Amino acid sequence: MKTGKQIVLIGAGNLATQLGLALHKAGFDIIQVYSRTEVSAKTLAQHIGATFTTNLTEITPTADLYIYALKDDVLEEVINTVPITNGLHVHTSGSIKMSLFSKKQKNFGVFYPFQTFSKTKLVDFSEVPFLITANSDESIENLKVIANELSHRIFVVNDEDRSFVHLSGVFACNFTNYLYTIAEQLLAERNLPFDILMPLITETVNKLKTLSPTEAQTGPAQRGDQLVITKQIQLLAQNPEWQKVYQLLTENIEPTKPIN
Amino acid sequence: MKTGKQIVLIGAGNLATQLGLALHKAGFDIIQVYSRTEVSAKTLAQHIGATFTTNLTEITPTADLYIYALKDDVLEEVINTVPITNGLHVHTSGSIKMSLFSKKQKNFGVFYPFQTFSKTKLVDFSEVPFLITANSDESIENLKVIANELSHRIFVVNDEDRSFVHLSGVFACNFTNYLYTIAEQLLAERNLPFDILMPLITETVNKLKTLSPTEAQTGPAQRGDQLVITKQIQLLAQNPEWQKVYQLLTENIEPTKPIN
Repeated sequence: MKTGKQIVLIGAGNLATQLGLALHKAGFDIIQVYSRTEVSAKTLAQHIGATFTTNLTEITPTADLYIYALKDDVLEEVINTVPITNGLHVHTSGSIKMSLFSKKQKNFGVFYPFQTFSKTKLVDFSEVPFLITANSDESIENLKVIANELSHRIFVVNDEDRSFVHLSGVFACNFTNYLYTIAEQLLAERNLPFDILMPLITETVNKLKTLSPTEAQTGPAQRGDQLVITKQIQLLAQNPEWQKVYQLLTENIEPTKPIN
Repeated sequence: MKTGKQIVLIGAGNLATQLGLALHKAGFDIIQVYSRTEVSAKTLAQHIGATFTTNLTEITPTADLYIYALKDDVLEEVINTVPITNGLHVHTSGSIKMSLFSKKQKNFGVFYPFQTFSKTKLVDFSEVPFLITANSDESIENLKVIANELSHRIFVVNDEDRSFVHLSGVFACNFTNYLYTIAEQLLAERNLPFDILMPLITETVNKLKTLSPTEAQTGPAQRGDQLVITKQIQLLAQNPEWQKVYQLLTENIEPTKPIN
């Protein structure tokens, strides 16, 4: 391995797969992959030249770094089952404190890539922000060295910072996508394709390169255009849920003059 | 002019400017620009080789096409003041019916480019959907010929279709941007830069090239992850408005298994 150190990957889902492939490509030595599903463990292990196991008690105790890339709700149970080792143990979750490791391991932290992952779509990590947390300066340095090989955007944060970053992502990614689903259905009802929206969606994001979102705000609510607002609330009469969303977001947007 | 026809542009704001520049570049003959602000009328007119006026009654009566690129709330008054002519009169508004012209003009319609415009940022119209409405087949054909020189995505729609398209844009563009402003402020409170979100925002949009937004939905609400949802509602305790937005959108997102 690049740093002469050995990595165990605990998990074989979307993030584990993308992270494993990227670490392998960057020259790191991933010696073992764990997944409770044998086919997942085996598939990923084969791609990155590692052994695999489906048994947490068989996890190699001599590795330098253990990356737990798992769903939040199984993390605690897995942490409690993995053997105690001298290595550095990190999870990859936005909203779980690093202290979940503290009853078990000596060296621990968090290695959180702030991105949304699919299993099959290869991720270019170079622009992905890595948020690093650890219980010692030495561990922070070790995580920085690794993150540096994948990305040029590294932030050392505490648990609370990370939980707010995660929350900001829920607004900017998950909730935004939900608004796209409403738009999609409004168009489908008129037999119009969703991709009629793509130039507008793309331009809305492009504006963020030169304007803050507060400066870039446009639309009937920002203009205080009550005539359009009233009409649009009527158009949503068939769907009270969407009407409530429209009204709440419209109320919250402060009418101001945008910078064009 | 390309089609041997003459255009008058009524308005000199963001859309009028971008549309004027694009039509001029495509070889159309814009003979006159109206704006109530002389400097705006003059500036745009000079860029596209037109005359200008600040007086609606001085609008040339012999043009073939009159494009009213104005804010919704002044449209009616302007329409009522422009001289009656034999030309085709179109506005560019998403939510105003074409019949606003019907008491005054014989030939009328709507020429709606579905995009958000800034005055200074040059727009590539080639991907911009043009939504066309008119009160005769001949006028629809004339508008199609013009739109075709600017874009390859032309839709002939009725007033109601157009109002739903406009509404879908409010959800996908204006409301989405409002969610970005919340994310921006959540990060600023932790002294973190907004651009930490850009890879995630970009990826959320990129996914729409291969998945419908319904398929692409991810996040705590989609996973039904009550633990994270409860924590995140607590993180928003300082801001009841954002908390309400979080709760409403989370309630509306159906927990399902996403396609990765």
